[in-house]
Amino acid sequence: MTVPAPLTGVVPPVCTPLTPDREVDVPSLLRLVGHLVEAGVHGLFLLGSTSEAAFLTDLQRRLVVETVVSHLGGQLPVLAGAIDMTTPRVLDHVREVTAAGAQAVVVTAPFYTRTHPAETARHFRRVAAASPVPVLAYDIPAAVHSKLPAALVLELAAEGVLAGLKDSSGDLAGFREVVTGARSRPDTAGFSLLTGSELIVDSALALGADGTVPGLANVDPHGYVRLYRLCRAGDWAEARAEQDRLCALFGMVGVGDPARMGGGSSALGAFKAALRLRGIIDCPATAEPQIPLSAEEVEQVGKFLAAAGLL
Amino acid sequence: MTVPAPLTGVVPPVCTPLTPDREVDVPSLLRLVGHLVEAGVHGLFLLGSTSEAAFLTDLQRRLVVETVVSHLGGQLPVLAGAIDMTTPRVLDHVREVTAAGAQAVVVTAPFYTRTHPAETARHFRRVAAASPVPVLAYDIPAAVHSKLPAALVLELAAEGVLAGLKDSSGDLAGFREVVTGARSRPDTAGFSLLTGSELIVDSALALGADGTVPGLANVDPHGYVRLYRLCRAGDWAEARAEQDRLCALFGMVGVGDPARMGGGSSALGAFKAALRLRGIIDCPATAEPQIPLSAEEVEQVGKFLAAAGLL
Amino acid sequence: MTVPAPLTGVVPPVCTPLTPDREVDVPSLLRLVGHLVEAGVHGLFLLGSTSEAAFLTDLQRRLVVETVVSHLGGQLPVLAGAIDMTTPRVLDHVREVTAAGAQAVVVTAPFYTRTHPAETARHFRRVAAASPVPVLAYDIPAAVHSKLPAALVLELAAEGVLAGLKDSSGDLAGFREVVTGARSRPDTAGFSLLTGSELIVDSALALGADGTVPGLANVDPHGYVRLYRLCRAGDWAEARAEQDRLCALFGMVGVGDPARMGGGSSALGAFKAALRLRGIIDCPATAEPQIPLSAEEVEQVGKFLAAAGLL
Amino acid sequence: MTVPAPLTGVVPPVCTPLTPDREVDVPSLLRLVGHLVEAGVHGLFLLGSTSEAAFLTDLQRRLVVETVVSHLGGQLPVLAGAIDMTTPRVLDHVREVTAAGAQAVVVTAPFYTRTHPAETARHFRRVAAASPVPVLAYDIPAAVHSKLPAALVLELAAEGVLAGLKDSSGDLAGFREVVTGARSRPDTAGFSLLTGSELIVDSALALGADGTVPGLANVDPHGYVRLYRLCRAGDWAEARAEQDRLCALFGMVGVGDPARMGGGSSALGAFKAALRLRGIIDCPATAEPQIPLSAEEVEQVGKFLAAAGLL
Repeated sequence: MTVPAPLTGVVPPVCTPLTPDREVDVPSLLRLVGHLVEAGVHGLFLLGSTSEAAFLTDLQRRLVVETVVSHLGGQLPVLAGAIDMTTPRVLDHVREVTAAGAQAVVVTAPFYTRTHPAETARHFRRVAAASPVPVLAYDIPAAVHSKLPAALVLELAAEGVLAGLKDSSGDLAGFREVVTGARSRPDTAGFSLLTGSELIVDSALALGADGTVPGLANVDPHGYVRLYRLCRAGDWAEARAEQDRLCALFGMVGVGDPARMGGGSSALGAFKAALRLRGIIDCPATAEPQIPLSAEEVEQVGKFLAAAGLL
Repeated sequence: MTVPAPLTGVVPPVCTPLTPDREVDVPSLLRLVGHLVEAGVHGLFLLGSTSEAAFLTDLQRRLVVETVVSHLGGQLPVLAGAIDMTTPRVLDHVREVTAAGAQAVVVTAPFYTRTHPAETARHFRRVAAASPVPVLAYDIPAAVHSKLPAALVLELAAEGVLAGLKDSSGDLAGFREVVTGARSRPDTAGFSLLTGSELIVDSALALGADGTVPGLANVDPHGYVRLYRLCRAGDWAEARAEQDRLCALFGMVGVGDPARMGGGSSALGAFKAALRLRGIIDCPATAEPQIPLSAEEVEQVGKFLAAAGLL
Repeated sequence: MTVPAPLTGVVPPVCTPLTPDREVDVPSLLRLVGHLVEAGVHGLFLLGSTSEAAFLTDLQRRLVVETVVSHLGGQLPVLAGAIDMTTPRVLDHVREVTAAGAQAVVVTAPFYTRTHPAETARHFRRVAAASPVPVLAYDIPAAVHSKLPAALVLELAAEGVLAGLKDSSGDLAGFREVVTGARSRPDTAGFSLLTGSELIVDSALALGADGTVPGLANVDPHGYVRLYRLCRAGDWAEARAEQDRLCALFGMVGVGDPARMGGGSSALGAFKAALRLRGIIDCPATAEPQIPLSAEEVEQVGKFLAAAGLL
Repeated sequence: MTVPAPLTGVVPPVCTPLTPDREVDVPSLLRLVGHLVEAGVHGLFLLGSTSEAAFLTDLQRRLVVETVVSHLGGQLPVLAGAIDMTTPRVLDHVREVTAAGAQAVVVTAPFYTRTHPAETARHFRRVAAASPVPVLAYDIPAAVHSKLPAALVLELAAEGVLAGLKDSSGDLAGFREVVTGARSRPDTAGFSLLTGSELIVDSALALGADGTVPGLANVDPHGYVRLYRLCRAGDWAEARAEQDRLCALFGMVGVGDPARMGGGSSALGAFKAALRLRGIIDCPATAEPQIPLSAEEVEQVGKFLAAAGLL
C-alpha cells in the first residue's frame, strides 16, 4: 500500500483512546478506527496533535501504529506523525513508525530550539533523505512557534523533499499561496495539499485543497465525508450548511473552564467525552498533565452532540 | 552520592562533543569533563540546552550520562535534563537518566502542547511523584514559550515537589522574587536557586542565588569558578571585572551570520569551536539541523579566545 | 448620508498619497478617490492601516477626511479610522473625523498598554457611548497584539455598541464564528461583516461576509468590484479565477529586500509605486520612518502590474 | 536648565493624578511633585508609561508638562515622553513637550506598524535631527513589541543621535551589554544609562548604570533615594536590604483580580491608591478603559504600605 499522490479526501487525525491508567486502550482504538472506516474516510493520520502524540511514550506510539496498520490490512493509507524536537530524534520516530507500517510520515519544523528558516529547510531535507516513505510537512505554528513560509514549502516540494503539506496554521491566505503555487508548476505534481482547519474545510477545498485532516472528524466522520462530497460535487450551498453544522458541533472544544485548564485539555477532553457518549470508546481519559473535564462539562458536550443530531 | 541541598557553586551545562558523523565523541566528552573538574566546578549538568539535549537521540542521551557518571565515580554531583514535551515522555527520560546514574533531574514546563499554569503544576507534581531523585525546575521561556510564575515555583518548593530552580528566563526581577520568597519561609529550606544567565552571575549571586549553570563555563570554567569565589568573598569590584571579561568572551555567540543561521547554531557552534581551538575536543560539529560555522566565523571565535587570554 | 446597515461591497482602505516632503498630496488623493469611485466601489475607508494612519499627524488626518468627504458630496459612505492607543485619545480622533464628515468610525482594541478582554470591552463601550456615528471594530492583532474574541464581538454587536467588524486577523475560522453567530440572532441584524484579508475575499463572501476592505483595491479596484459581483452572482469558479489573479498581483508586497526593510515598508511602498506607475498619484513616497523601495524594486512592481494586465 | 550628561540618580516617572471625571488634577500633581522633590530625587520623567501617557490626550499631556516645569522653576531636570506610533506623530509631541519646557524627550521604537531594525534606526535619527533637546531611547518591548538591540543603541549613542537609554525591558544582561559598551568607548561619554526595572536597581547600579526610573518611587521616593545613596557608597548589603523592602512593597501591583482586569490596571491602580492612602493625591482614578480596584483590593494596598512602614 502506498499513499496516493496526491492524497485526497478526509484523513482524520485519529484520537488515541486511553484506559483509566493512561495506557493505550486497543479495543477502543479499533472501534474508533472501524467507526471512521465505516463512515468512508479516505485515510488515517496517526500520532498527530489530536492523537495526543506529544503525550504518548515511544512504546505507546509504536503500539498505536502497529495496531491500526495490522487491523486495516491495507484498506486505507495510514500516515503517522514523527513529532519531535529536531532531526536526529525525528529520524528515530520515522524508523519506528515505518517499521510499524506507516506509509507516510508527517513532520513539523524543529521546536524547543531556536529556529531559522535555513535550519528548517535543512531539517526537512535531512529527514526526507533518510526516510523510506514520503514526508509531509506539518505546519502548526501554535505548537512549534514558527510558520513554514509558502516559498519554502514550494521549493521543497519541487525538490521532491516534501510529498505534501498538512496546514494547521489557520492562515488560509498563506495556504492558498502554496495551493496556487503548487498548481501552477509542473514539478510539484502530485503534491498533497491538506488543511487541518476543520472550520473552513469548504473554503479550503473551494480554493483547491486536496483534502482535510479534521480533528472533529473523530466525533462526526460522516459529516466530514458528506462535506467533502458536497464540495467535490460543487454544491457549495449545501456544503456551507454542512460546514456550519460542524462548526456548531465544534463549539464543544470550549466546554472546559478556562480558569481550570488550557484549551488543549478542553478540546481533547471534549472529543474523547463525545466518543464515549457516542459509545465508541470506553474511557474519556486524556494523557497527563491534561486536566479532566468535570461531570457538568461532559454534560455540555452531550448537548452539543444532541444539537448536531449525534445522540 | 546525593545532590547537596542546596546545590551551590558553578554547575556547567556540559557540551556534548560529536564526531563528524554526529555520534557522541566519548574521548572528547571525557576530556571536557576533566577540564571542568580540574577547574574546580561544583557539579555537572548533563543534557541541558547547551548540551544539545533537544538534538540527542535517546541512546545518545543515555550514553552521555553513563559515560560521565561512571567516569566521575561520585566526585561531583551530576544532574541530568529530562527534556521532553509532556509528563509521560519526561518520565521515560527520568527513568533512563536515573538508571544511568544521574543524581537529580531537571525538567521544563510542558511544550508543543498549549500550556496552562494548572497543567504545568500538575506536570511537576506527577513527575516528582514518580522520580527516584530530586527534581529541579528549568525555567526557559525561549524554548518552551511559557514562564514559570514565581508563586508557582515557591508553592511547589514548599510542597517538596521541587528541589530547586534553574532560571534561564533572563528575568532577574522574577528570579529575585523566587529567591527572596524561598529565603523568607522555613518550608523551602535547602531549595537550590541557580541562574542560567551567564552574563549576570555576579548580580544573581549578590541577590542571593546559590549558584550558576553557565553555558560559557564549558569554554572558561576557571573564569566562572573565580567569579563565584569572588562573589562569595564579597569582593564585588573584582567580581564585576571578572564578569565583564566573561561578558566580552560571550560575544563569540554572535559570530554566525544571521542571514545564514539562527542564534542557536551560532552560539553552540561558537562554544564547540572554542573548545576545539583550546584543544579540549576533537571536532566542532553540532547536531542536525544546525548550520556549521564557516572558517572565517571560527577565526572570529579564536579572536574572542585570544582577547580573553585563553589561547 | 448615513452608512448602510449592513455596509456591503468593496470598501477600499484608501492610500494617502504624499508629496516628496511627506505632506498630503491633495490632487493625487482626489485622483485616487476618483479612480476608486469610477471603478464602482461601495464605500471608502480613510485612515486605516493601508492609509498609513499610524504615520499621519492629526492635522494630516483631518485634511484627508475633509478633502475626501467634501469632494464626494455624499456619493458614497465614508468610514474613518480613529486609531490610537486608548479610549481618551481615540475619542479625540472620533471628534475630529466626525467633525470632518466621516459617517462611521473604525476603532481597534487598545494597544501599547497591556490589554485584558474586560478592558477592551470597556473601551468599545466608552467609545460608542461618546461617538456621534456608528463604531466598527477593527480586529488587527498584527498591530495591536491582541485578538478580538468572537464572543465579545457578538456581545457588543447585540448591545448596539458595535455596528460592524473589519476583520484583518487572517483567521477565517474566527471570522466565520462571528458571521455565523451574527446571522443566527435577531439582535445583531444590520451588523456589517467586512473582511480585510484581500487574498481570501471569495472565501469570506462565500461563508457570509457582507463585504471587503482590501488594501490591494487601491491598485486594482476594478478587479475587486468584479470579484464581489461574481461572488454575489454565485459564480464561484469565475470568482476564484479573479481572486487568483489578484493574489498573483498581491505578490508585489514582497518586492522590498527583507534585509533592508520591514514588511510594511515593502507593502505600502509597492502599492504606492504601483499607483504611480499607473499614473494615478504623483509621488510614491511613504511616511517616515519607512524605507523607500529601490529603483530595481519599483521595476519589479511594474512587472506585477504588467502580468496582471494593468499597465 | 539642561539635563546633565550623564543624568544620574533617581528620576521617577511621575504618576498623573486624575479627578473623578478623568481630568488632570493639578493640585494633586503639584503635591506629588513636591513629595518627590522633598525626598531628594534627581530629576522627573513626565509622560512615561507609569504616567499613563498612553491614555492622556494631547491637551492633558501639555498641561502636565507646563504645570510641572513652571512649578519647578529649574530646580530639577525634567524629561518628557513623546510616546506615539511613528516619526511624524512623535515629532508633534516633541514640539509640544519642549514648547512646554521639557529639557529632554524620551522616545520608543515605532509601534502598531511592523518594525524592522533599519526603520527603528531611521526613526531615532529623524526624531533627533528635528528635536531641540536631547533624545533618550525608551526600550519597552512589553509595550512596543520589539527590543532595541544593544549594538543599535551603542551605534546611535556614538553618532550623537541618542543621549541616553531608559531600559524597561527587564533584560539585565542586554542592558549590561549597553553599559559595558558605552563605558568602553570614548565617543559615548556622557550617555545616560537608566534602568526602569524597579526591582533590580541595586543590580543595575552595581554593574554601572547611572540611575533609575522606578515607577514605585511615586509611592516611596525616600526608599529609592536611600537605595541609590547606599549603592553609590558601595554599601551593598544595606542596599540589598533596602531593595528587598521595596520589592516587598512592589507586591501591591498584584492586588487586582486577574479575572477582572489586566496587569496595567492593577499596577497603576495600586500606585494611585497608595498615593491616596498616603494623603498625597485626592483621587485614585485611572484613565479609561482601565478597570478600577475594588474597595477590598485598595485595602490590600494599605497592608503593603503598612508592612513597608509607610502608613
